[in-house]
Amino acid sequence: MAPPHKRDSKLHLYVDFMSQPSRAILIFCQINNIDAEIHVVNVAKGQQRTPEFKAINPMGQVPAIVDHGFKLFESHAILRYLAATYPKVPDHWYPSDLSRRARIDSILDWHHANLRRGAAGLVMALVLAPVLGLSKDPRLASDSEKLLRSSLSKIEDVWLQGGTKFLGGSFKPSIADLSLCCEITQLELLSAAKLSDLLSPFPKLRQWLIDTEEATSPHFGEIHKLLRKAASNYEAQRHEKLGFKSKL
Amino acid sequence: MAPPHKRDSKLHLYVDFMSQPSRAILIFCQINNIDAEIHVVNVAKGQQRTPEFKAINPMGQVPAIVDHGFKLFESHAILRYLAATYPKVPDHWYPSDLSRRARIDSILDWHHANLRRGAAGLVMALVLAPVLGLSKDPRLASDSEKLLRSSLSKIEDVWLQGGTKFLGGSFKPSIADLSLCCEITQLELLSAAKLSDLLSPFPKLRQWLIDTEEATSPHFGEIHKLLRKAASNYEAQRHEKLGFKSKL
Ligand SMILES: N[C@@H](CCC(=O)N[C@@H](CS)C(=O)NCC(=O)O)C(=O)O
Ligand SMILES: N[C@@H](CCC(=O)N[C@@H](CS)C(=O)NCC(=O)O)C(=O)O
Repeated sequence: MAPPHKRDSKLHLYVDFMSQPSRAILIFCQINNIDAEIHVVNVAKGQQRTPEFKAINPMGQVPAIVDHGFKLFESHAILRYLAATYPKVPDHWYPSDLSRRARIDSILDWHHANLRRGAAGLVMALVLAPVLGLSKDPRLASDSEKLLRSSLSKIEDVWLQGGTKFLGGSFKPSIADLSLCCEITQLELLSAAKLSDLLSPFPKLRQWLIDTEEATSPHFGEIHKLLRKAASNYEAQRHEKLGFKSKL
Repeated sequence: MAPPHKRDSKLHLYVDFMSQPSRAILIFCQINNIDAEIHVVNVAKGQQRTPEFKAINPMGQVPAIVDHGFKLFESHAILRYLAATYPKVPDHWYPSDLSRRARIDSILDWHHANLRRGAAGLVMALVLAPVLGLSKDPRLASDSEKLLRSSLSKIEDVWLQGGTKFLGGSFKPSIADLSLCCEITQLELLSAAKLSDLLSPFPKLRQWLIDTEEATSPHFGEIHKLLRKAASNYEAQRHEKLGFKSKL
C-alpha cells in the first residue's frame, strides 16, 4: 500500500469492506461508474496505524481517498466531494437545490452523534470486543443501545416522516441514505434475534432499508458480501455454543 | 416563542448563548450582516423540550433556524446553508473551490466525534453535572478528557499544520474556525488551572484562538459575554470554596 505519486492522475480509495463508511463510498463509486483503484486497509490487523497509511490520513482511519494527488478523509466530506467533482453523478445524490441540499447535510451531520455512535458502540460492545479479546463493557453496551433505539425512532418519525421512499423527503436516494443504511447494515453482525428486536418497532425504516438496497442493486449486495459472510459466521458460532451448552 | 408563520419572510434563529454551536451561528450572522430575529431557547430551563420548540426542531436541540418558512437544524448544515444562500457572504467562509470546500467539510465532519464529544463531555462531567444536581461520573470525565487532549493535538498537528492562520490551510477564517473555536471557548467554564493545563501544550492552537477571535471582533467577544460571565462566576465560587476550606 505505497502512497500514490503526488501527480498520479487517478482516484484511489483506501477502505475496509468491514467498515460502514467505507462501504458507502464503494457503493457510491460503483453505481456512478467512477473509476477508482481500491486499496484495502485491514483495520482488524491495525493497518490504519502504519506510517504509510498515516501519510494519507493522519487520523489513522478509513475511509480516505487520494484524487489526483488530493488527500481527503471523513466519509461524508468524501461523498460530497465526489458528487460535486464527478460531472456524471446525478443531482439526486447531493442536490444542488440549496434547501434540499441543506436537508441532506442536516441528516449527515445528525448521524455522527446519534445513529453512528449508537450503532457502532453496540457492535463494538456486543460483537467486536469479545473477538478482539477486550474485557466486557456493560455500560458501553447499554448506553449505545439506548442511543441506537432513540436514533432509529428519529429516522422513523423525523427523517422518513414525509412519506417519500428516501430520507428527508427525497424521491431518489442521496448520500445520506447510503451513509445511514450502511451503518444500520453493520448491525447484521449482532445476533438475528437482537437485530429483529431492534428493528421490529420501525416499519417505515425497514421498508427504507429494502428500498435503498434495491435502488443501489446489485452494488449494495456485492459490497456487503464480506460483512454478510462474517455475520453468518458469527451467527453459526452462536448456535454452536448454544448447542454445546444444551448438550451439557 | 410562538413558531413563526409559514410564509414569514424572515430569518429566525433559535439559540442559547450558553450553547457553543448556537454562538457560531450568531457570530456568523453578525459578521456577515445577516438580519435575523433571535429567539432564546433556555436549555438550562428545558425549553428545548417544549412542543412549541419541537415543532421547529423535532430533535429538541439548539441551534435551529427558520428561513422564510424553511426549518433547519444541525449547526454545520445551517452554516453551510447560510453561506450559500446569503449572496453577500464572502467566499472564504465556505469556499466554492471544491478541494478547499472539501477540506472544510472534512474538519466539520471530524469535529462531531472528536473535539465536540471530548470538550462537551468534559464540561458536562466537571461543571454542569454538579450544577444540575447529577451524580458524579468519573468515567465520563476521564474518557472525555482523553478524547479532548487527543483532539486538541490533532488540531495542532493536522489542521494547523500548513502554517496558515486558520484551519485546513486557510488564510481567512471559515465556518470550521467558527465552529471549533466556539467549542473550545466553552472550556472557559472549567477552572482556569484546568484550562491552562489543557491548552498549554499547543502553541499554534492558542495563537489560532486569538487570531479567530480577532478576525471576528467585536462580534466574538459580544456573543461570548454571557458565557464569560458564567465562567467567572464559577471561578469565583471555586475560590470561595477553597477560601472556606482553608479556614476550617
Ligand atoms: N467519521 C468517520 C469515521 C471513520 C471511522 O470511524 N473509521 C473506522 C472504521 S469504520 C476506523 O478506521 N477505525 C479504526 C481506528 O479508529 O483505529 C467517517 O465517516 O469517515
Ligand atoms: N450537532 C448539533 C449539536 C446540538 C446540541 O448538542 N445542542 C445542545 C446545546 S449545545 C442542546 O440543545 N442540548 C439540549 C438537549 O440535548 O436536550 C449541532 O451542531 O447543532
